[in-house]
Amino acid sequence: MYFDPMLIGPTPILDTFAEAFPMRFVRLIITAVDDYWLNAALGDFTGYSASIIGCDAETGVERMLDPSETCDGRPGAAVLAFGFSSEALGKSIPGRVGQCVMTCPTTAVYNGCATDGSSETIQSIPLGKTLRYFGDDFQKSKLLGGRRYWRVPVMDGEFLVEEKLVVSKGVGGGNIILQGTCPEIALAAARRASEALAPLAGVITPFPGGVVRSGSKVGSKYKGLAASTNDAYCPTLRGRVETSLVDGAHCSYEIVIDGIDEPAVAAAMRIAMQAAAGDGVLAIGAGNYGGKLGKFHFHLHELLR
Amino acid sequence: MYFDPMLIGPTPILDTFAEAFPMRFVRLIITAVDDYWLNAALGDFTGYSASIIGCDAETGVERMLDPSETCDGRPGAAVLAFGFSSEALGKSIPGRVGQCVMTCPTTAVYNGCATDGSSETIQSIPLGKTLRYFGDDFQKSKLLGGRRYWRVPVMDGEFLVEEKLVVSKGVGGGNIILQGTCPEIALAAARRASEALAPLAGVITPFPGGVVRSGSKVGSKYKGLAASTNDAYCPTLRGRVETSLVDGAHCSYEIVIDGIDEPAVAAAMRIAMQAAAGDGVLAIGAGNYGGKLGKFHFHLHELLR
Amino acid sequence: MYFDPMLIGPTPILDTFAEAFPMRFVRLIITAVDDYWLNAALGDFTGYSASIIGCDAETGVERMLDPSETCDGRPGAAVLAFGFSSEALGKSIPGRVGQCVMTCPTTAVYNGCATDGSSETIQSIPLGKTLRYFGDDFQKSKLLGGRRYWRVPVMDGEFLVEEKLVVSKGVGGGNIILQGTCPEIALAAARRASEALAPLAGVITPFPGGVVRSGSKVGSKYKGLAASTNDAYCPTLRGRVETSLVDGAHCSYEIVIDGIDEPAVAAAMRIAMQAAAGDGVLAIGAGNYGGKLGKFHFHLHELLR
Amino acid sequence: MYFDPMLIGPTPILDTFAEAFPMRFVRLIITAVDDYWLNAALGDFTGYSASIIGCDAETGVERMLDPSETCDGRPGAAVLAFGFSSEALGKSIPGRVGQCVMTCPTTAVYNGCATDGSSETIQSIPLGKTLRYFGDDFQKSKLLGGRRYWRVPVMDGEFLVEEKLVVSKGVGGGNIILQGTCPEIALAAARRASEALAPLAGVITPFPGGVVRSGSKVGSKYKGLAASTNDAYCPTLRGRVETSLVDGAHCSYEIVIDGIDEPAVAAAMRIAMQAAAGDGVLAIGAGNYGGKLGKFHFHLHELLR
Repeated sequence: MYFDPMLIGPTPILDTFAEAFPMRFVRLIITAVDDYWLNAALGDFTGYSASIIGCDAETGVERMLDPSETCDGRPGAAVLAFGFSSEALGKSIPGRVGQCVMTCPTTAVYNGCATDGSSETIQSIPLGKTLRYFGDDFQKSKLLGGRRYWRVPVMDGEFLVEEKLVVSKGVGGGNIILQGTCPEIALAAARRASEALAPLAGVITPFPGGVVRSGSKVGSKYKGLAASTNDAYCPTLRGRVETSLVDGAHCSYEIVIDGIDEPAVAAAMRIAMQAAAGDGVLAIGAGNYGGKLGKFHFHLHELLR
Repeated sequence: MYFDPMLIGPTPILDTFAEAFPMRFVRLIITAVDDYWLNAALGDFTGYSASIIGCDAETGVERMLDPSETCDGRPGAAVLAFGFSSEALGKSIPGRVGQCVMTCPTTAVYNGCATDGSSETIQSIPLGKTLRYFGDDFQKSKLLGGRRYWRVPVMDGEFLVEEKLVVSKGVGGGNIILQGTCPEIALAAARRASEALAPLAGVITPFPGGVVRSGSKVGSKYKGLAASTNDAYCPTLRGRVETSLVDGAHCSYEIVIDGIDEPAVAAAMRIAMQAAAGDGVLAIGAGNYGGKLGKFHFHLHELLR
Repeated sequence: MYFDPMLIGPTPILDTFAEAFPMRFVRLIITAVDDYWLNAALGDFTGYSASIIGCDAETGVERMLDPSETCDGRPGAAVLAFGFSSEALGKSIPGRVGQCVMTCPTTAVYNGCATDGSSETIQSIPLGKTLRYFGDDFQKSKLLGGRRYWRVPVMDGEFLVEEKLVVSKGVGGGNIILQGTCPEIALAAARRASEALAPLAGVITPFPGGVVRSGSKVGSKYKGLAASTNDAYCPTLRGRVETSLVDGAHCSYEIVIDGIDEPAVAAAMRIAMQAAAGDGVLAIGAGNYGGKLGKFHFHLHELLR
Repeated sequence: MYFDPMLIGPTPILDTFAEAFPMRFVRLIITAVDDYWLNAALGDFTGYSASIIGCDAETGVERMLDPSETCDGRPGAAVLAFGFSSEALGKSIPGRVGQCVMTCPTTAVYNGCATDGSSETIQSIPLGKTLRYFGDDFQKSKLLGGRRYWRVPVMDGEFLVEEKLVVSKGVGGGNIILQGTCPEIALAAARRASEALAPLAGVITPFPGGVVRSGSKVGSKYKGLAASTNDAYCPTLRGRVETSLVDGAHCSYEIVIDGIDEPAVAAAMRIAMQAAAGDGVLAIGAGNYGGKLGKFHFHLHELLR
């Protein structure tokens, strides 16, 4: 079936493609007085946000920022949050920031996407504009360099939060699926891929530890469920369903990648494949829906040429 | 006003009380093949869950478990999740486990509360009973020692999840509020308190890093908002509102404690006060609503006698 | 394609089937002092509940009840509410009753499904068990004939509400799709079908006025959207997609039927077809997913034999 | 306590005030081919929307519109929807329209608030901008007179929906509370008040039938509940709590009024009092929180001078 055998080391790369979707994203710059409180806020904010099929947003730390890179000179991080539309992000992000960052000692939150272009054409969602209400009419706003910030009184002083977050167009659902001879080998390969992506700018891996083991297909035998287990990749269902597992594979994992644009996702998929390949990794493929749903198709062989 | 001056070291303990509420909780035992994946699942599960005023549940890691303490002999953790009723927990917990644990390589989830007593009198919420639907009718159940488990096919084999979680009666909203001369001193004191509570069985501190800086009061000037900033503890509002800050205090923090029963919360509050007290910590008090709302009153002076 | 032409009057019945799903339902008996307030509660309770793809439940009035049929001798109605599991119903129904019925003067709410069988085997969801908390600890319970009720103090006395609702197994998504030469004819046919079903016991038509004009398919080109327009039935898309519209049809409507069991849905589909058929109605078919998703298949030709 | 006795007929008007809040609202113009389908859409859209303490919005039909008053020459209605902020409305209204109006045969939805003023200063929420995604990339937009509309392909042609809804500042929580000697008298008075308000422009009464019998106070003995029964008005709690019921009153009802501005709410409260007063109506007062929460105070005696 695969006329063009392609290998990374001992691992065959299947002649298939990842099908990804247009998404919208915001970038938040979160800062705090030190790494301890920064990590407390980041851990809370990026929790419970693996997939918009079951959560309100897909979030992750894009990369850590040195104090020299943040606008208040404190340790910080760039965080990406993806949703299927700016409206959906406007529903979820202010609540997350209010519960996970505003509550956390010493933190501040800034918009992290470029705001050039006219205010007409750039979309945005409210952030401080919503959270200010917590101030019970004691909040104050200030305008600095054309950007509005809110100072909401809290117990350690004021929570500084930017009025709005710029919404940009991104790509969601880039992915690779790797198959191993046994769980130990597949898991080690998945972790290599996830760790290789961690420092990369422009992408996040929204699932816990960067890896998914409960891949899903569209639809279900139960009404009202949008997704159900991807039976073709379940080793225990081999023989009962049409399997996508290659001979000898007894375990598979998926790495899901959301990125700020197509090149970022393409680069991340290439790096993930290179990191995952190795002895006992019998195949690296990708998940798609036959090409009919998602607008972006990342062909694995093309990524490696 | 305080006829009975009480001190821990240099720090006055105010003659007041914490007002806490009856809550319901479940204990989940989460295990994984190693600490890396265990922590990935724990971090995701306990995210976005600081306060039921703004989140769907209040969660936290109660304590880490040695492989010798778990029923499958793997590294694990006891996690507590609090809600205001078993119905509320039944709404939130299956979704959290489905998104944050079922997705994570190698994990399994068990009920961690005692199941003795007749099945008539013990309340429970569905867990595997709900999550099994992800299996798209391929899932299987097994009964072991009177407890039912579900095996849901996933890409690395099967996700093992117990049918139900026992719901028990707990206490939510135990707290101390500390005041410091400056942010650095108050923050260090809050962190000492939070770290002293981390290994304690029977309690969690659901806020990020265990500390709250956006304490709230009931009600708001804006309709439909259940809570707003606790202005009496905001240093920037001193002079505009009736303040609760003592002379010289310019920063305050709250440690919120949810526990499995009154003794657990009382012990945790005592330990938190002892850890927080120190030079520059000008007062340790607690939050209450005049005693009219919450059923449990933890008087600070009584806790220390 | 249809070797067995079957007609109702001038209208061809296509040789296809409706694909329906196992669902769970509860039956509420709502009573009030007179029809004015009964209808106020019913209208509010059954609003915003057309499809569990976008709402929290699918609800509708099953039939109106004479005072001689209700347990408190007042005017009443049997209301059915469907969800995909008892857990989902437990999430949505108490909130709906609290907002739409408890608020409404003079109303009371009882369980309307049989409770025979052991309490072990019959599933139920909380109702008064949840709503009682509104009473702020002033509520009282009473036990009558083995069923528990709550009396919640309100401004016109007490809101009487049964502790639990029995959950039964039902069928969701029975349907017919009719095609007409023009909008006027198709709309009149759809209304005839909807009105014929109104007095029928055992079924509801959850959409506004009993008819759907925005039928959907599973999946979307946009990530995170579980459903999108059923392009095959959109007259304006004929020529751009593979259409399911017969020659000459310029408008189609769907009647969705949820019922307490297969015979109830089958009977309702037959009645709906007989009522809808007529001059200018060029075809009556049904919606399905190729038979792979829903467990119940209602073949139109078999229903009419 | 009331030095200035004021009467409407036999009914004393208490010297108190209604405390109301700033809210945001949108006005939707919904049209359909005839009254049957118009009412189907209106009934569904305005269901489950009595109070933002428990629902996603407070909605109601403001008034019915003659075909000569609508922009497409069909029967229509002006519908008001209130939330505590434009962000909150942006979360709830597109979903409601998608489920309750887009599904309903022949309907169209337009913005009903003035759009003059610069686009910079006027706030808006997405409507067609969100719902268009249902069209699965087949939707089209058109620009007419500076306003953008979306045409989403559906089974009876196209659903026409305006891109955005203008958000305006309104007033929520205007109210009167009436007390009667018995339930029959109080209920008749409440219905008179509700029916008097129905044709009034600028206001809605969001509760079922326009009347509330489960009035609430802020806070609860149970943690995480924002509101609980207003015990001071519960006749069965007289003697156990500090009652607000006058001697001889055994039943009370509240009429809650949301309006587009202060004069509209003031006029509606006056009309409601005049309609409600009568034999056996022992007092008409209003609900407030001591004046500390809501910005608007409607003093009953001033309204009548």
